[in-house]
Amino acid sequence: MAKKKVAFQGERGANSEVAARKLVGDNITSVPCESFEELFDKVEGRKADLGVIPIENSLIGSIHKNYDLLLERKLVVIGELNLRIIHCLITPKGVGMSRISKVYSHPVALDQCRDFFKKHPGIAPISYYDTAGSVKMLAESGLTNSAAIAAPYAAEIYGMKLLKKSIEDEQSNYTRFLLLAKKPVKVKGAAKTSIVYSMPDGPGVLFKALSVFALRDINLTRIESRPARKRAWQYYFYIDFEGSAGEERVKFALDHLNEIANFVRILGSYPKHKE
Amino acid sequence: MAKKKVAFQGERGANSEVAARKLVGDNITSVPCESFEELFDKVEGRKADLGVIPIENSLIGSIHKNYDLLLERKLVVIGELNLRIIHCLITPKGVGMSRISKVYSHPVALDQCRDFFKKHPGIAPISYYDTAGSVKMLAESGLTNSAAIAAPYAAEIYGMKLLKKSIEDEQSNYTRFLLLAKKPVKVKGAAKTSIVYSMPDGPGVLFKALSVFALRDINLTRIESRPARKRAWQYYFYIDFEGSAGEERVKFALDHLNEIANFVRILGSYPKHKE
Repeated sequence: MAKKKVAFQGERGANSEVAARKLVGDNITSVPCESFEELFDKVEGRKADLGVIPIENSLIGSIHKNYDLLLERKLVVIGELNLRIIHCLITPKGVGMSRISKVYSHPVALDQCRDFFKKHPGIAPISYYDTAGSVKMLAESGLTNSAAIAAPYAAEIYGMKLLKKSIEDEQSNYTRFLLLAKKPVKVKGAAKTSIVYSMPDGPGVLFKALSVFALRDINLTRIESRPARKRAWQYYFYIDFEGSAGEERVKFALDHLNEIANFVRILGSYPKHKE
Repeated sequence: MAKKKVAFQGERGANSEVAARKLVGDNITSVPCESFEELFDKVEGRKADLGVIPIENSLIGSIHKNYDLLLERKLVVIGELNLRIIHCLITPKGVGMSRISKVYSHPVALDQCRDFFKKHPGIAPISYYDTAGSVKMLAESGLTNSAAIAAPYAAEIYGMKLLKKSIEDEQSNYTRFLLLAKKPVKVKGAAKTSIVYSMPDGPGVLFKALSVFALRDINLTRIESRPARKRAWQYYFYIDFEGSAGEERVKFALDHLNEIANFVRILGSYPKHKE
């Protein structure tokens, strides 16, 4: 069987690639992309079979760019994963703590390891465009006074040493990833569904939209709103709920929502991630 | 009467200063701040009487940093304003279109004027830290081959020429600003209230929280969720609704919310902005 080509944003060794391997399996062909747009292009244009995008981080919040792309583009969600984000200190082989004076990483990762830099005031944090990219740069540059902060998988990919594991300040740092494809899948067992909709103006419209789910005991797990660019203060609402679009009560709820909304689109039903 | 000192983030001439003058009056002492944290510090420490912060833009969405600061700090909301954002091309006096080869501004403003740069392919957009700051820099540098993109008020402040008004691609570009103070105010007439709350785990909790308002015909105008940093996938919800915390039905609704929520805080009641 041909290996699945899975697109993700970032360099090889990125957390998105770790998520791709957990969602699809270790036997994949990785397709790194420079941007999320390129990832959508690749999957839509069949240059990749699947795509993996981060949608929300438990510390930072939603990745709005990807909510907007889910609406603008035509891919469907066929899976989800909550990945614990682990920041590791990675060095070239043979380089120990005493030789490090600079640590490269993405500014968000550096900011999430403040305690480490407080404990080591002689080490300067230096911003780089990408976490895994900073490990790649170290591997290629031959620098021996520097380290990088990235996922442990990045050390493996670039043949580097994992000097310290888990140097992040807050351990409850999770990112939720979505698996995207061109065609929907049939879901067996516990499912979740993601939709996007917009409502006409009027009092209580937000409440009415949520009622269609509550009246049928459908549990919402997430709600997010994003401005509609064409008209000021109009919103698209993104909702995740438990259940599959194939279930009867979900069909009734979506019919009911269509009755009162301006616009409804099912982004996809997929197996619920088990913690 | 002493002039009110009003703090805002950005250089003199920023849209936040325009909002401050519309909210408080032209006869104010402007207190520009480098960061939103500095603004909160200044008002809390009585170095300024009032503060003005952007909370949401109709094209980009919420300014999350300020939602987080409203929760972490103790200031109260006493006013709101929707300001139409107008991007103008500003040059030193005597400089016309034919001499311009570079345009400086904040990257978001440059991105919102793409049509202008398409029509003038010989003019390069150059990122700068601040819109009004780019006008200040031009005024101080004496550059005669450059322009800046900022609010018309910035041209007035720095004695520059407003060469082209309203060069933004989308005219439905509004920013909602909040007026902050140390003490709440009594509101007469049409009011709005902002609150923040968090809910325990469980099915339908989001729906139950919104029910306390719907059951009393209280109209919600906005809902926003932000992750609670201490525990993964727990959220704070920020709600705006019509009515003042002094009204009886609002008091009943907030009592009801306190019954079912983990945490509720009233951020403030204030006169509703009339469009």
